[in-house]
Amino acid sequence: MALTIIPVRGVGEVSPGDDVATLLLDALRRDDLSLVDGDVVVVTHKIVSKAEGRIVELADDDPDAHRAVVEREAAAILRRRGPLTITKTRHGFICANAGVDRSNAGPGRAVLLPVDPDASAHRIRLRMERTTGVRLAVVVTDTFGRPWRRGLVDVAIGVSGMEPLTDLRGTTDTHGRVLDVTEVAVADEVAAAADLVMGKATGIPAAVVRGLHLGVGEGRATDLVRPASEDLFR
Amino acid sequence: MALTIIPVRGVGEVSPGDDVATLLLDALRRDDLSLVDGDVVVVTHKIVSKAEGRIVELADDDPDAHRAVVEREAAAILRRRGPLTITKTRHGFICANAGVDRSNAGPGRAVLLPVDPDASAHRIRLRMERTTGVRLAVVVTDTFGRPWRRGLVDVAIGVSGMEPLTDLRGTTDTHGRVLDVTEVAVADEVAAAADLVMGKATGIPAAVVRGLHLGVGEGRATDLVRPASEDLFR
Repeated sequence: MALTIIPVRGVGEVSPGDDVATLLLDALRRDDLSLVDGDVVVVTHKIVSKAEGRIVELADDDPDAHRAVVEREAAAILRRRGPLTITKTRHGFICANAGVDRSNAGPGRAVLLPVDPDASAHRIRLRMERTTGVRLAVVVTDTFGRPWRRGLVDVAIGVSGMEPLTDLRGTTDTHGRVLDVTEVAVADEVAAAADLVMGKATGIPAAVVRGLHLGVGEGRATDLVRPASEDLFR
Repeated sequence: MALTIIPVRGVGEVSPGDDVATLLLDALRRDDLSLVDGDVVVVTHKIVSKAEGRIVELADDDPDAHRAVVEREAAAILRRRGPLTITKTRHGFICANAGVDRSNAGPGRAVLLPVDPDASAHRIRLRMERTTGVRLAVVVTDTFGRPWRRGLVDVAIGVSGMEPLTDLRGTTDTHGRVLDVTEVAVADEVAAAADLVMGKATGIPAAVVRGLHLGVGEGRATDLVRPASEDLFR
């Protein structure tokens, strides 16, 4: 069955104290769109962070202040090169500048990552499920660079209502051979798919992925963090 | 506008000498599906490699033979742990076991990566465009692990008819601020999105991503390889 990825338009500017679930449902309603059972609502963390007040004053031309904010947000510094700092966040994610981002933050400001993006996803999901009466999953995303490959991709930093990893252990291929691939990072693939309609410059902060038919799950995006002991590249 | 991701079903087993473009078009026709201008056809390299004869005999219970094949395919070895070898391929991609994969290969066999996946994508695209008369892009995918994050995701290893990186340099956010994000790996996001309908165990080796409205481009997947000099994690 085909998958559909529907952009959520017209959400507008988000401010501290706003209710993201209500903003998204209102935007969908204005476009005559309703959610259905099994929809995955994908939201950029940017509006989640803003609604949660995770904004700091940060002048555009003050690299020292930027560095201080990054160091305050980071749990560990992995690498530095020029203005770029590769960090581990308190959630365990490895990304540039501890997620401190000035894009779409407004002049003289930067947006931080949510304190607990899994909890943010869970709150948005519960509110949307209660309002609509349908079963949903929610994925909160950020845009990360990768080692070895150029360009950025959206990944899941918060998840509710689904398992972020699809466990294929014991599954066989079309020849009956047990698969070498054991876990697919489906929440990251969902985040990447949603970014194809969201974009960075378009002001579309959310999308609905319809037709995935995931089972109900109660995983967390932090399940996607590879333990340092298993990681060959730290 | 919404994006649609359509699985290409019923392709069946692929053998050396088969024409992948024709197999995909036949499968689409049996499902009463036609391609339209701007469609991105995403194909797992597995069937491309098989059609190109990139198959080796490899017993399931012979780790030494497996290692020999991996070392022959790899341009460099980055890390080893147990049966896992992280390699640089001749194309420049960094992945496990130089892409040598026994899943869906058939008993006692392994599938290798195409010699030049960009050229493979280009041939498939030209054949499909000539047959259908519509303008297409083609992405050939593989399933890669990532440092720091658990689970595998599909990425682009061959591209034709599009730019794999969307250049946002000079683009402004909704506040008029020039974006910090400069390049999005759109071909990798397309590959990840397509994997949501393809899967590893389902025997669906291709998908059509419709509604992306990419400009025409002549990039290559090797554009996605980050030069070692820019990479902080080798």
